[in-house]
Amino acid sequence: MRNLKLTIAYDGTAYNGWQIQPNGTTIQEELEKTAFRFSRERCHNMDGSGRTDAGVHAWGQVASWPYAGNLPLARIQAAFNSLLPPDIRVRQIVEKPSLFHARKSSRTKTYLYVIYNTLYANPLTLRYTWHIRQPLNLDLLNQASTFLVGQHDFNSFKAADGNTASSVRTILQVRWCRRGHYLLCFVKGDGFLKNMVRIIVGTLVEFGRGKYPPAAMSAIINARQRHAAGITAPAHGLVLRSVDYD
Amino acid sequence: MRNLKLTIAYDGTAYNGWQIQPNGTTIQEELEKTAFRFSRERCHNMDGSGRTDAGVHAWGQVASWPYAGNLPLARIQAAFNSLLPPDIRVRQIVEKPSLFHARKSSRTKTYLYVIYNTLYANPLTLRYTWHIRQPLNLDLLNQASTFLVGQHDFNSFKAADGNTASSVRTILQVRWCRRGHYLLCFVKGDGFLKNMVRIIVGTLVEFGRGKYPPAAMSAIINARQRHAAGITAPAHGLVLRSVDYD
Repeated sequence: MRNLKLTIAYDGTAYNGWQIQPNGTTIQEELEKTAFRFSRERCHNMDGSGRTDAGVHAWGQVASWPYAGNLPLARIQAAFNSLLPPDIRVRQIVEKPSLFHARKSSRTKTYLYVIYNTLYANPLTLRYTWHIRQPLNLDLLNQASTFLVGQHDFNSFKAADGNTASSVRTILQVRWCRRGHYLLCFVKGDGFLKNMVRIIVGTLVEFGRGKYPPAAMSAIINARQRHAAGITAPAHGLVLRSVDYD
Repeated sequence: MRNLKLTIAYDGTAYNGWQIQPNGTTIQEELEKTAFRFSRERCHNMDGSGRTDAGVHAWGQVASWPYAGNLPLARIQAAFNSLLPPDIRVRQIVEKPSLFHARKSSRTKTYLYVIYNTLYANPLTLRYTWHIRQPLNLDLLNQASTFLVGQHDFNSFKAADGNTASSVRTILQVRWCRRGHYLLCFVKGDGFLKNMVRIIVGTLVEFGRGKYPPAAMSAIINARQRHAAGITAPAHGLVLRSVDYD
């Protein structure tokens, strides 16, 4: 058995997220179906680095796949990319030691959230940005963001229906920058709870509007209650950029 | 009557081009319908700077609209943008002298064509790029492009069904640059024939592959026959960037 590491990009608009679900098409399902078509191996074993929500995009999602066949890597990649729908592409395939696992071996993940911050939306980037008309202050966004960095119980930033044993995670970076009318937010951490990046962004936007002073973020974290934080930012502004391994 | 100049952005994917047609929804139709909804003026008089083909996008399409009402400009813009479908936005409205006309007064237009030039397509920019897997040479693209600059009979670069009195046009600039895997082609001219930019790009791609030496472009221009030029590049890689006036 060869243990393959796949790096996958997708436009999440048409999908019900990464993970196979009873209802709706998912990215994992498309990949497993495609793998079956060319490998003839029944594969219910393509594990992602983590779920992405319905509508969330990815540039660097990672999956591990134990593959029994002997096709060369370039042929496997070509097979995936000629059979997958055009909104999913396998960017890279490499062979890994048998202990490698997309989720368990991952060290950090980096997400990018993009806000289009001016009076009217841009029809050309609608699918990949959250349009906010009220001006957001970059310094306030970055100041409030610093309180999130470090190891915290992020229960305030977890979807109400997200059931994880522990909600303690370590965030390594939350950094905002402006590019014209776009505000880009890079969030890097060792792991994320359900909807966590989207709730972080939805909360930070209130700080960017000046509704709270930056230091008020501590109280929101300490509350450990979902209602203490802000709204869940829309899925379509979010991209899983990369998953990093040792 | 006030003479308004509208600057319009749209994602052309869902539309049958700019100009009102018997079949299919068009951008002009959506704008005129919307203008009627808030102004109650029957408007069959919103003239664009020119047609864009089905599927072509715009960032800076310009239309002129003789408007009899007295709403302030910001209110008119807000009315358009709250009633239009999300893939069309009015970016700016200014009032112009009565002689101003979007098409007749225009001096130059600038188009941008984007090619994604690497082995596999990028699902996140699929709607706005032409994917070409074979490597294209930037120098060859730019060298062949120089032959297009100037005043020429561009009959070789006109759709077979395009009926214009004269096919003489002046191209001011055809410039390619590379941004990572993207090749950007800016084309600026005093006017364009039907499909002209797309045929120019479809032809230049053959030069970028090294199929012809750059100087062979002269013969293609001089042939004044559509079949002398290359294919018509797909519509979705093209954006009308701006229309310039005195």
